[in-house]
Amino acid sequence: MTTSAPHTWTTAPATADGWIDRAREVATLLATDAVERDRAGATPHAEVALLKDSGLVVLLGPVEHGGGGQDWTTAYRVIREVAAGDGSVGQLLGYHYLWFWAARLVATPEQIAAVEEQATRDRWFFGGAVNPRDNDLVITEDGDDLVFTGRKSFSTGSKVSDVTVLEGVIEGTDKHVFAIVPSAQDAIVFNDDWDNLGQRLTESGSVEVRGVRVPWAQAAGYVDREFTPRVYNTLNVPLIQLVFANFYLGIAKGALTTAATYTRDRTRPWPYAVEVKDAAVAEFHVLETYGDLQAKLWAAEALADRAATLIEAINTHPDSVTPRERGEAAVVIAAAKQRAVDVGLEIGSRVFEVTGARATTNSVGLDLYWRNIRTHSLHDPIAHKRAEVGRYALLGEVPEPTWYT
Amino acid sequence: MTTSAPHTWTTAPATADGWIDRAREVATLLATDAVERDRAGATPHAEVALLKDSGLVVLLGPVEHGGGGQDWTTAYRVIREVAAGDGSVGQLLGYHYLWFWAARLVATPEQIAAVEEQATRDRWFFGGAVNPRDNDLVITEDGDDLVFTGRKSFSTGSKVSDVTVLEGVIEGTDKHVFAIVPSAQDAIVFNDDWDNLGQRLTESGSVEVRGVRVPWAQAAGYVDREFTPRVYNTLNVPLIQLVFANFYLGIAKGALTTAATYTRDRTRPWPYAVEVKDAAVAEFHVLETYGDLQAKLWAAEALADRAATLIEAINTHPDSVTPRERGEAAVVIAAAKQRAVDVGLEIGSRVFEVTGARATTNSVGLDLYWRNIRTHSLHDPIAHKRAEVGRYALLGEVPEPTWYT
Amino acid sequence: MTTSAPHTWTTAPATADGWIDRAREVATLLATDAVERDRAGATPHAEVALLKDSGLVVLLGPVEHGGGGQDWTTAYRVIREVAAGDGSVGQLLGYHYLWFWAARLVATPEQIAAVEEQATRDRWFFGGAVNPRDNDLVITEDGDDLVFTGRKSFSTGSKVSDVTVLEGVIEGTDKHVFAIVPSAQDAIVFNDDWDNLGQRLTESGSVEVRGVRVPWAQAAGYVDREFTPRVYNTLNVPLIQLVFANFYLGIAKGALTTAATYTRDRTRPWPYAVEVKDAAVAEFHVLETYGDLQAKLWAAEALADRAATLIEAINTHPDSVTPRERGEAAVVIAAAKQRAVDVGLEIGSRVFEVTGARATTNSVGLDLYWRNIRTHSLHDPIAHKRAEVGRYALLGEVPEPTWYT
Amino acid sequence: MTTSAPHTWTTAPATADGWIDRAREVATLLATDAVERDRAGATPHAEVALLKDSGLVVLLGPVEHGGGGQDWTTAYRVIREVAAGDGSVGQLLGYHYLWFWAARLVATPEQIAAVEEQATRDRWFFGGAVNPRDNDLVITEDGDDLVFTGRKSFSTGSKVSDVTVLEGVIEGTDKHVFAIVPSAQDAIVFNDDWDNLGQRLTESGSVEVRGVRVPWAQAAGYVDREFTPRVYNTLNVPLIQLVFANFYLGIAKGALTTAATYTRDRTRPWPYAVEVKDAAVAEFHVLETYGDLQAKLWAAEALADRAATLIEAINTHPDSVTPRERGEAAVVIAAAKQRAVDVGLEIGSRVFEVTGARATTNSVGLDLYWRNIRTHSLHDPIAHKRAEVGRYALLGEVPEPTWYT
Repeated sequence: MTTSAPHTWTTAPATADGWIDRAREVATLLATDAVERDRAGATPHAEVALLKDSGLVVLLGPVEHGGGGQDWTTAYRVIREVAAGDGSVGQLLGYHYLWFWAARLVATPEQIAAVEEQATRDRWFFGGAVNPRDNDLVITEDGDDLVFTGRKSFSTGSKVSDVTVLEGVIEGTDKHVFAIVPSAQDAIVFNDDWDNLGQRLTESGSVEVRGVRVPWAQAAGYVDREFTPRVYNTLNVPLIQLVFANFYLGIAKGALTTAATYTRDRTRPWPYAVEVKDAAVAEFHVLETYGDLQAKLWAAEALADRAATLIEAINTHPDSVTPRERGEAAVVIAAAKQRAVDVGLEIGSRVFEVTGARATTNSVGLDLYWRNIRTHSLHDPIAHKRAEVGRYALLGEVPEPTWYT
Repeated sequence: MTTSAPHTWTTAPATADGWIDRAREVATLLATDAVERDRAGATPHAEVALLKDSGLVVLLGPVEHGGGGQDWTTAYRVIREVAAGDGSVGQLLGYHYLWFWAARLVATPEQIAAVEEQATRDRWFFGGAVNPRDNDLVITEDGDDLVFTGRKSFSTGSKVSDVTVLEGVIEGTDKHVFAIVPSAQDAIVFNDDWDNLGQRLTESGSVEVRGVRVPWAQAAGYVDREFTPRVYNTLNVPLIQLVFANFYLGIAKGALTTAATYTRDRTRPWPYAVEVKDAAVAEFHVLETYGDLQAKLWAAEALADRAATLIEAINTHPDSVTPRERGEAAVVIAAAKQRAVDVGLEIGSRVFEVTGARATTNSVGLDLYWRNIRTHSLHDPIAHKRAEVGRYALLGEVPEPTWYT
Repeated sequence: MTTSAPHTWTTAPATADGWIDRAREVATLLATDAVERDRAGATPHAEVALLKDSGLVVLLGPVEHGGGGQDWTTAYRVIREVAAGDGSVGQLLGYHYLWFWAARLVATPEQIAAVEEQATRDRWFFGGAVNPRDNDLVITEDGDDLVFTGRKSFSTGSKVSDVTVLEGVIEGTDKHVFAIVPSAQDAIVFNDDWDNLGQRLTESGSVEVRGVRVPWAQAAGYVDREFTPRVYNTLNVPLIQLVFANFYLGIAKGALTTAATYTRDRTRPWPYAVEVKDAAVAEFHVLETYGDLQAKLWAAEALADRAATLIEAINTHPDSVTPRERGEAAVVIAAAKQRAVDVGLEIGSRVFEVTGARATTNSVGLDLYWRNIRTHSLHDPIAHKRAEVGRYALLGEVPEPTWYT
Repeated sequence: MTTSAPHTWTTAPATADGWIDRAREVATLLATDAVERDRAGATPHAEVALLKDSGLVVLLGPVEHGGGGQDWTTAYRVIREVAAGDGSVGQLLGYHYLWFWAARLVATPEQIAAVEEQATRDRWFFGGAVNPRDNDLVITEDGDDLVFTGRKSFSTGSKVSDVTVLEGVIEGTDKHVFAIVPSAQDAIVFNDDWDNLGQRLTESGSVEVRGVRVPWAQAAGYVDREFTPRVYNTLNVPLIQLVFANFYLGIAKGALTTAATYTRDRTRPWPYAVEVKDAAVAEFHVLETYGDLQAKLWAAEALADRAATLIEAINTHPDSVTPRERGEAAVVIAAAKQRAVDVGLEIGSRVFEVTGARATTNSVGLDLYWRNIRTHSLHDPIAHKRAEVGRYALLGEVPEPTWYT
């Protein structure tokens, strides 16, 4: 991708379908050298530039400021399409959408308006340093400023972003504060220590935060230094969990599509079969395997789409969403994630059976998909997601909102 | 159900949701003694009466004649709900909808109008004797009449129906003729030989046809004794295959719901566990199993719903549907059926693991669900459905219309 | 079987292989009408007579008294073979072997010698009423007698047995006593309430015990009314759990063999396949499915065989077996049981996919295998067996002996 | 390993168990830096030296010449153990055993004696260039010499070997000739093009053969330039296929053991569980997953062991083995391979679920196992192995000997 001819889009799509087509164009560009870029593991500056050039970064932004004005249903589909071309970039974009939306979840109306205008006009790319299992970003007060200090184990995308969403706790209290800060500042130091099996271009390494200053006025959702929670605030976990499910599904789709091309173009029929065929695509087990995997993928996609409708229904009335409504969406999203993970891993591993031994050559890079899903699907244990869905199916209970449910 | 107090509905639902609620009411009645009725294996006269009383039989009928005026999307949901209460009755209703719709598929506009009016006004229940693997219903001409003679191996619902759809081939030609005939006539003899593992109340036994007379004017779709095919005609297989998928899903839902009630009310925690719980619903493996099964079921349901939207899109322009459009719907339906079968069988077998040994008592009857799905899911081999979907995923090809694709 | 010509064996086999062949002859007889006998559900007098006539009941008995003098390795293989012909009879025989052996586990040397001599000479068939989750068989002392009173929920085989092993607790103590008593006595009343999904001929219903008298001298293992435990005593659970695994494997083998005959003789090739074959046995998916199921079955059998070697090693030194040795055998047996259950259920359900729709006719009875395994495999929850094996794999810990581990 | 202190063994083990212990010692050394060596991808000179120093290379060699005098049963177990430490080295050793044994399969008694003596005394490490799907190694005659010229796509181990087994076809005939030649010679050029997903240290790249000269006298099995085939010759495929199964099983065992250590030492319990535990090893799903994987692995190992007994039985009478006997062994080996592949891939992927997100760090390298099995398990399509076993289970037919069956 990085070496390809320049790609310029001069107009923004006008419809959801137009945006999805745009995402497919981006995915096609990304797919051309996804294997090479995965291996190189370079910081994805060009990839983020592509997301900006294509306009995808402002998909959720207000139309009046040059944004796409689209909803999450479209955002999820766009994430899925981009991830089919490059799982890492799909994740970066998905996290970006969540951080872009974070103001809606926790900020005041004035803050929301201000952030969305500026982020859209300037095509900000968002990163985050919000991993909730680390409680080590401490906030002290210094006059009208809050000062963030500490360390986060993961800061996906932050290094290649314009702004970073920081989350910390005010010292001596249990008050969590979210704030948007410029990513390029001396007080933020990236440790460049993300060297993992998959999703290698997500810049998910740890970050040191050495006294980042934020005016109290920018503490999201705080009025007179007090925060007023509402149920909608707790939608962040369902929103991001469905982001996960969608980029897993995109990766799985990428695996199946890439494998199909390989099988058609390069896989040889088995010359020692009881009944020898003249092409691999004529072998029954090849057809049956593709059919099985495709059916499973379609079903998982359909459930993710259904889960998106629940988010959309909630988004029509963010100020009056009930805990039950939030909980039922969270349960369906947990189910969608399970299916995306199970199906994605199965596709990522079984595609080799229908491409053959030579497809294990590293230049083919067909393992990329399994590695990508395997890595991120461990974000939180799927067994506990199953138990959550089980509690609902068996007892009708919905999970209490936490950082992971 | 047969012994329950009379249930009378005086008004027809006005909306799709109303019809689905109605279906749930019917299912609740059916579920109360589904196990006993399965064991008794009596001819389901009362069950068909219930479908008539509830108005479900005229769901697809024109509003002006007292029908529900609903579309197939609603019909599929209704089938699913009824099958959750009793799989056999769900199948009977699903087949009825197909035969009710058969005029639309093959008949002339005048025939369609006449049939739908009469069938709706008189609340006909439809059966069929159309199994295409038997080519032994021969039609001879006798003046203005066609005379059907021969045998069909399967005639689901015909015995408890008002009218039966017959299908035969005119002697010495390859012209297939469909016609609607009264089920109660001496020339139709039911052999009462359906004694199978599951779907026991569907009256699917063989039938002798001994000279059933049909005026040429009632030969569906024939004008001047010639038939004009169109692509829409070939939708019968996709329509019925999605009927199958939906009653499998309903049966699976019935299994999960019934099992959950049992687990909550009767299953004891395991007293020899490393960590003994005070209730079965507190055991992690119980929650995890329910969560896994529920997630799989939701995904399969979502794919069936997506497949229904393809049917609905075709139904907006039956005269201009293309082979490709028909083929792509058939492929997604084949995928939906696969998922319904795989998930349904898994649920039907695994529910025992979360209900326990005593749930194998025959008075509980928890095996009903596995038996029902296992039996009907063999209608045509699922391996070949997988291969069909695989050909599409791998080669972009859609299946040629046959009696099974 | 009951109507077949008389079968008489005049000599006992001299070798283990000879005994296994004998078991196969018995299985062949049983298989001829296993479906009909399952449906009839009659008390299996003829079947037990066959086990006696064939000599299989004395397989473990001392040679000097007319027994086979075989070890458990052979007994397990024999159980497996018989269960391939009829799962219920395999279970009856397996339980019989355990009760026959029970003296070795808990009795004094004199008691062992006496029981084995009489049981072998008289070809006793053993039943049992030992379900440990019922603590309601109470023993009172009356002079030199113990008097058993109460109820057991399950008493497999007892009704068709010569003698029954009773287990109870002496009132006011925690002393368990095992004793062998005549099954035909007024004080033992069978409730004939075993009406379950599978293993229908095992006479596993509940039993009332109304004052069964047992001389103290026959309280197994008691000397001067005190019991001296040793580790070997606790082998009863591993022994019977491996009995379970073996009759599950036998049932699974029966399913595969019966299905293969059906596929060869009666299944038709699919006429709407992309590539139509001239026989079902030429369809790739049919071959692949049989290969997959056979490989899984062989692996499960091989693990059961390996587990038997651990039992055999222990049986060479019953007086010095250590808890660790006992525990490691129990863990491998728990693993063997898991595999037998998982594979057996899969075979029992999937054989229909390679036999086809007509194999669901009740006269074929191909569901017998799934029903049999599904029913008994719930004896104790397999999830907890997995956890036991997991504790060993992860932590090196073996389970404490209980009634189920 | 390469940097570890020298390890010297001064005596050869005297028993099979001693050799297996020796293999475990080697595996332990290999495991210490298997991840680093995999990443470095250096030519495995040190690893082969270790196999020589430990004596494992002469395991099958005659005792009188300093060999171990062991049988294949032990060889398979040794391969498995070594592969648990390093899958690549397990494969190298397994292939070595096959090439060492190749003389027995095709050579004359004199050739066998000569080769085994020299190979044992000099501790030759064998490689091979025998990939049968390449028919491009052509042999011409030049006086008393045969001259091999051409290219082989794969030459596992040859680069680090003392001698290489070449296979070619005499020009203008269909006579295959095997010969053992020195690996280090100008006429053999290694292309160093093995850059694949797994088994990265096996030096399996392609090789150019530019006129390698072999005296006719060393053409294995040829007498007066004519070859006399026997059934035993065709055992090479079953022998090597069972080598495959065993190193897959070893890799799977390595995965499970490595994961268990990680779970115990580093995995944290899930803090958002409904019921939070104080250690990951106390979570039920963790125990259940380990139990499930361990049971499956044990079953697959047991089947591999059973398959070895069939090889051993044949090796007692190599001159009189029948095609049926050979075929039945091949079928059981095909089944053992299926189970090893299925179970190995499942373990390789699922261990992450019980180690957690941080185990995806590349320094942990837990993906090594999945990559290794995924890569080599495609050697020939497992679907066709399933079909082979299916033909036997269904029809009783054994496969015709080919290069892959």
